[in-house]
Amino acid sequence: MDRSYVVKIDCKDEKGLVYKISETLYKDDVNIIANREFVDLHTGKFFFRAEIEGDINPGGLKKELIERLPENSNVNISKRKRKNIVLMCTKESHALGDILIKHYSGELNADILAVVSNYDILKPLVEKFDIPYFCVSHEGLDRDEHEKRILEVLSGFDIDYIVLAKYMRILTPQFVKEYENRIINIHHSFLPAFIGANPYKQAYNRGVKIIGATAHIVTDNLDEGPIIAQDIIRVDHTYGWKDMQLAGRNVEKTVLSNALTLAIEDKIFINDNKTIIF
Amino acid sequence: MDRSYVVKIDCKDEKGLVYKISETLYKDDVNIIANREFVDLHTGKFFFRAEIEGDINPGGLKKELIERLPENSNVNISKRKRKNIVLMCTKESHALGDILIKHYSGELNADILAVVSNYDILKPLVEKFDIPYFCVSHEGLDRDEHEKRILEVLSGFDIDYIVLAKYMRILTPQFVKEYENRIINIHHSFLPAFIGANPYKQAYNRGVKIIGATAHIVTDNLDEGPIIAQDIIRVDHTYGWKDMQLAGRNVEKTVLSNALTLAIEDKIFINDNKTIIF
Amino acid sequence: MDRSYVVKIDCKDEKGLVYKISETLYKDDVNIIANREFVDLHTGKFFFRAEIEGDINPGGLKKELIERLPENSNVNISKRKRKNIVLMCTKESHALGDILIKHYSGELNADILAVVSNYDILKPLVEKFDIPYFCVSHEGLDRDEHEKRILEVLSGFDIDYIVLAKYMRILTPQFVKEYENRIINIHHSFLPAFIGANPYKQAYNRGVKIIGATAHIVTDNLDEGPIIAQDIIRVDHTYGWKDMQLAGRNVEKTVLSNALTLAIEDKIFINDNKTIIF
Amino acid sequence: MDRSYVVKIDCKDEKGLVYKISETLYKDDVNIIANREFVDLHTGKFFFRAEIEGDINPGGLKKELIERLPENSNVNISKRKRKNIVLMCTKESHALGDILIKHYSGELNADILAVVSNYDILKPLVEKFDIPYFCVSHEGLDRDEHEKRILEVLSGFDIDYIVLAKYMRILTPQFVKEYENRIINIHHSFLPAFIGANPYKQAYNRGVKIIGATAHIVTDNLDEGPIIAQDIIRVDHTYGWKDMQLAGRNVEKTVLSNALTLAIEDKIFINDNKTIIF
Repeated sequence: MDRSYVVKIDCKDEKGLVYKISETLYKDDVNIIANREFVDLHTGKFFFRAEIEGDINPGGLKKELIERLPENSNVNISKRKRKNIVLMCTKESHALGDILIKHYSGELNADILAVVSNYDILKPLVEKFDIPYFCVSHEGLDRDEHEKRILEVLSGFDIDYIVLAKYMRILTPQFVKEYENRIINIHHSFLPAFIGANPYKQAYNRGVKIIGATAHIVTDNLDEGPIIAQDIIRVDHTYGWKDMQLAGRNVEKTVLSNALTLAIEDKIFINDNKTIIF
Repeated sequence: MDRSYVVKIDCKDEKGLVYKISETLYKDDVNIIANREFVDLHTGKFFFRAEIEGDINPGGLKKELIERLPENSNVNISKRKRKNIVLMCTKESHALGDILIKHYSGELNADILAVVSNYDILKPLVEKFDIPYFCVSHEGLDRDEHEKRILEVLSGFDIDYIVLAKYMRILTPQFVKEYENRIINIHHSFLPAFIGANPYKQAYNRGVKIIGATAHIVTDNLDEGPIIAQDIIRVDHTYGWKDMQLAGRNVEKTVLSNALTLAIEDKIFINDNKTIIF
Repeated sequence: MDRSYVVKIDCKDEKGLVYKISETLYKDDVNIIANREFVDLHTGKFFFRAEIEGDINPGGLKKELIERLPENSNVNISKRKRKNIVLMCTKESHALGDILIKHYSGELNADILAVVSNYDILKPLVEKFDIPYFCVSHEGLDRDEHEKRILEVLSGFDIDYIVLAKYMRILTPQFVKEYENRIINIHHSFLPAFIGANPYKQAYNRGVKIIGATAHIVTDNLDEGPIIAQDIIRVDHTYGWKDMQLAGRNVEKTVLSNALTLAIEDKIFINDNKTIIF
Repeated sequence: MDRSYVVKIDCKDEKGLVYKISETLYKDDVNIIANREFVDLHTGKFFFRAEIEGDINPGGLKKELIERLPENSNVNISKRKRKNIVLMCTKESHALGDILIKHYSGELNADILAVVSNYDILKPLVEKFDIPYFCVSHEGLDRDEHEKRILEVLSGFDIDYIVLAKYMRILTPQFVKEYENRIINIHHSFLPAFIGANPYKQAYNRGVKIIGATAHIVTDNLDEGPIIAQDIIRVDHTYGWKDMQLAGRNVEKTVLSNALTLAIEDKIFINDNKTIIF
């Protein structure tokens, strides 16, 4: 992967963009391994992603591209490399555990730098895998102070993505801004949706036949950020609400893992409040 | 099927119910082909369904069962037979068409007695299959008067189930009561749910990755009756809202067909606002 | 759609292909609405598809592209238009009926020119939709003679795709060659697979929990051509083999419809014995 | 759960079985929490499962039931309890790891007594969870001698189920007989099926669009025992064969976990070479 990079571009759409980008790459003797583009016809925005290979000077290439692209284009050229992730959790182990095992099995192209939690419940599990565990209790702290302490812990790491593996506290806009578009969350989803306490009990009372999970980028709107991946699992009348919760955990962990893999492979674009997955 | 019946019982749970029911059937020389039961531990209600065979006197058997069961038990014994259904629709043909074709192919154990619509758009389609089509326009009528005219049409038929195959008007409680627990509706469902006009546009703007459909028994609460069946279909960022609508149609028609089949086979119990599917 | 075309290219991969193609399009003042490309790293083949718009001279553009591409490149530029399809069937109506209804509902961007069958069973259904039905019985004819008669019927039409909607006879290599890569078939699929008579009985005896369907391009190898789409449906021990067959029909019709839609939208590439779906 | 038992009965079908069973339970003052029955109309076999509660003498109850049931009936009454399981593996950690995490999270109603492998590769992972790991190398041993050593290890444990979590060696009929109907295996499945070396490469070359996994009871016929659970995952042309393998792992682990849960809850009946899942 030494000479491998990912180019991600988004800008105003106009004629000739693919030509201009590909010419620039070609003249720099860059090999395109794979590329995709998408034009959002509603917003007139152009999205481009390419996996490229060669003796590349990322800064120079970026400059060349920006010169040929419309004003205010976003160009990102990053080395293809193992990503650095930090996991955050509270008390539940299913989503966290799945990522730990995938990491252990070599199925994630990422290093888990640390796990941060507001409880110490999952410390024994995390330490089995020789991953640093930071318990930052929220007891007796207001939200800002608690987050400040977490941010201090996080500041010690060079982080590509933060994964909220059932971290059950709401993040402030300041926190979200600090890691903008780099925080991934998972939450259960139902059809219809249920608002308020214990959604599984509500779903049980409503007699839903499927239970879903949604992985999304965290924004200031709680649970309302751009959706990366969704899936469902079937349930029936023999499921009590705890059975539904258990079933829900299975789909939550699968969807979060899939979303994380897409992030690690630089396949996610943010398009307003939506994602484009290449 | 001449000597085949379906027994459906729901009552307060107590010890010995299966024994009392099965003894009654046994002593009457009735053969049980299949049976299922379920106890809702939350409400303490008992549900039983059996497919039985023999020289059966349904009235007498029902009386015997009621004598041995707790007070206020519901016992229903019906001949296994082709059901009589009426379809209601407005302008869209996908759900209606799927049922027409299944009916034509002999895949539904039901006769379609009539199709009722507030438009005449689908008349040519329905009449291809030699099924009576009643256009009862709502133009210039208030809701009650319009429904009165539909009820007049329906009163001419002995109906087991009414299927709302994209009938886009809200039914009044009076109408629903007339065919209580016998009206099946289909509607699109999303995670999250979207309220208000053009949910597909909202779903598009939200960037959902799956689109669902829910078939349910119609109650006074619009789109909130007991769920019979649900399913989903995957979409991605290349889907415009009209593509989503098209994908949604496919899952709508499949889910409605499946729900109708369950109804035709007497496999649905209503348990408060939920269903039990045996 | 008047000025809309689809460009499909496959050729030996080499550096600069996207640049050369996009430059050619740009200089001809062609607007790219959407494009995708894929390099098969195993075979070193390059695949490109673009939806373009403009005052286009397809013959001239094709020539220009071929001049800049590697030797033996395949370049296809076709107007985006409603496709012409012919359906072939035998006795079963589920797959055929689904396409007829979708066509009637305006959900297919295609015209059904004719239905050809070796039986007249489905004639009444097809004629409801005012589509010509040709019954070419195989009775008393050897395979070659039977196919010759079918080819005579087909020769009267300008056909983009032939859809085998449960046409239960094997086509000869001559027939397949005549409509190379333009014949789409559907067949049931199981895990594990079952060879020989009545696969549903075998699947029943094996106690499978899912039943699948595969839509594929027809080649000389029976049921072994490039796969376009696959899906499955769940079954359980309460399904007899006829119930499995009925469930199988539902998934067959869905998968065939989806495959047909991909074909109609020119989204299928053949890559040896595989497909690339853009 | 102290007074909770599961009754499983299979026998020749005849009239009055549910009555006789339920009467026996009722007269012994046993409470039925849930029950299901199924008659296989092809083989004329009757299957019954009930979760019961009360002051139960399992030996006495079994005797009473056998007296009233047809000759050669199988009656099994077992306390509802945490099951004892042993996992067997070779080199791959995905299926093993998923079970370890579920066990750690308290999601399995079972204790993992030991892990047995023919390699020591997974020892560090297993020992993180304080579970005994037995490496029984097959190096230099013939199959019988190797199995003899494994059976010696297993003989030290009171085992309800053995789970082959990607144990890549074929078990002899003697081994299978020793733990008859209590060994659960997982293997990848494809439509179509591929026989021989590296099925993922074959599936890649064939261009399959879905990859499946099958969990089954191990019998003498390799990979051909009664199927407990199956599921699939979607792939496309961008998946190389190693990507397919990775996707396959995800579905393998999910299906194996689900099958294990069904086994732990005593929900599986063997019906010739099929299962009945209650």
